[in-house]
Amino acid sequence: MKADEINQFLKQAFSGGQPPVVEAADGQTARCRIAYHPHQIRPGGTLSGPTMMALADTAAYALVLSAIGFQPLAVTTNLSIHFMRKPKPKDLIADVRMMKLGKSLAVMDVAIHSDGEEDLVAHSVVTYSIPPQSHGEQTGAA
Amino acid sequence: MKADEINQFLKQAFSGGQPPVVEAADGQTARCRIAYHPHQIRPGGTLSGPTMMALADTAAYALVLSAIGFQPLAVTTNLSIHFMRKPKPKDLIADVRMMKLGKSLAVMDVAIHSDGEEDLVAHSVVTYSIPPQSHGEQTGAA
Amino acid sequence: MKADEINQFLKQAFSGGQPPVVEAADGQTARCRIAYHPHQIRPGGTLSGPTMMALADTAAYALVLSAIGFQPLAVTTNLSIHFMRKPKPKDLIADVRMMKLGKSLAVMDVAIHSDGEEDLVAHSVVTYSIPPQSHGEQTGAA
Amino acid sequence: MKADEINQFLKQAFSGGQPPVVEAADGQTARCRIAYHPHQIRPGGTLSGPTMMALADTAAYALVLSAIGFQPLAVTTNLSIHFMRKPKPKDLIADVRMMKLGKSLAVMDVAIHSDGEEDLVAHSVVTYSIPPQSHGEQTGAA
Repeated sequence: MKADEINQFLKQAFSGGQPPVVEAADGQTARCRIAYHPHQIRPGGTLSGPTMMALADTAAYALVLSAIGFQPLAVTTNLSIHFMRKPKPKDLIADVRMMKLGKSLAVMDVAIHSDGEEDLVAHSVVTYSIPPQSHGEQTGAA
Repeated sequence: MKADEINQFLKQAFSGGQPPVVEAADGQTARCRIAYHPHQIRPGGTLSGPTMMALADTAAYALVLSAIGFQPLAVTTNLSIHFMRKPKPKDLIADVRMMKLGKSLAVMDVAIHSDGEEDLVAHSVVTYSIPPQSHGEQTGAA
Repeated sequence: MKADEINQFLKQAFSGGQPPVVEAADGQTARCRIAYHPHQIRPGGTLSGPTMMALADTAAYALVLSAIGFQPLAVTTNLSIHFMRKPKPKDLIADVRMMKLGKSLAVMDVAIHSDGEEDLVAHSVVTYSIPPQSHGEQTGAA
Repeated sequence: MKADEINQFLKQAFSGGQPPVVEAADGQTARCRIAYHPHQIRPGGTLSGPTMMALADTAAYALVLSAIGFQPLAVTTNLSIHFMRKPKPKDLIADVRMMKLGKSLAVMDVAIHSDGEEDLVAHSVVTYSIPPQSHGEQTGAA
């Protein structure tokens, strides 16, 4: 799938709120942006951790879809994230890289920074489970 | 802080959306519930991963506040989560346990299950950074 | 497999050094012990992190074997560990619990403490990939 | 500290076995190599997971020492690792990068590949706790 197809799908699939926007996705890497919104703010004037976790997860989903095609039932098996700097009230950008694309699992890392800044604000590793042809049992979360 | 004090604080601090509700918190363990809402639904009829990540993170925050008192600037340093079963459209409940409360870091694990069911849907380990007296440099996310 | 069968297998399979000893394993939980040895000591008089990581990994392997039978090619997909207290020069004991046993993945958590002490020294979450009948592609480490 | 100073220190500090060799370390990145040895072999003819975990941990330690100077009591707070391909019986090389060097925590990622091959065999994120001047309480493992 291409970036604009993924964006169309995400808008339908993610009820409740504006999903992050896929700016690029080529099966090996992807870039997603989440627009700043005041409801992301937490005490101290920084953006919430869940905002960054959701961004990392969606960016990984977008990369999986760009790599294997339309598989809406690909689900997250595990996600780990380290928060390194407190982001200012700005858009956040996630750059994802495919580290391993197997038959049943895709492992990616995600670097998140604020728009216009170089320093990493967070780094995440995300594993997706890829549904088998015949839709068998899967471990994970949508 | 007690559960009702934490709930009052979360309502102020978490702009945008209803935060999870702290049902119990005693400094060693805490329980939080997030009410089911249709916008949590993702393809396949299950609840989104970010819903569970946000619940784990808030539950850990609530436990930290119950353990060390009002420290709104405690921030997540890292969070890892494994998704094990796809939750049905129901409330989710998170049970958090303090594994280590140090001077600068608190490490907790979080077991998430659907209301009325026993099986784990997700398991998370969350580390919070506790701000020093004099509010020095910190690594983490709010 | 039962604990003594697993121990026999581990002695053959783990060339180079004494493997941890499986003290109990019933498919749902397992307990493993690694004997204290001076080469585990690191600066500060504490036991090395890799000693605890290897213990967590072997304990999870033992639990998988006790749950699904003799599958030597089950491999670790991912492992995360938090170190919470510096262990004294004593045996370490790992208690593993099966959180999810699926067709292709097993997810377990591991609590490690020093012999005769209650406090956790480390906590780990370990995922094993279970080889399919027909030995297909797998992601992981032995 | 420079690579050869770190190697000298590791030889003293790591009793029991040959430690990995630091080939380069400049405070921002480091490269470590662990020589292949038959005792690293596990069922299936691949190298053990604990070999890679120990390599990741030591490489991160080397990078911390190169960044902050001789601080033997820097300890691992947490480590997560994803295993992506089964390494052949060859030397393993770890490339570490400093993602965040704070006053109390250093966060690094580690890419591991087999000597002479490009594909990642494992990817790890490692957090070290840096001892305060006055050697206070710390959470972690040596």
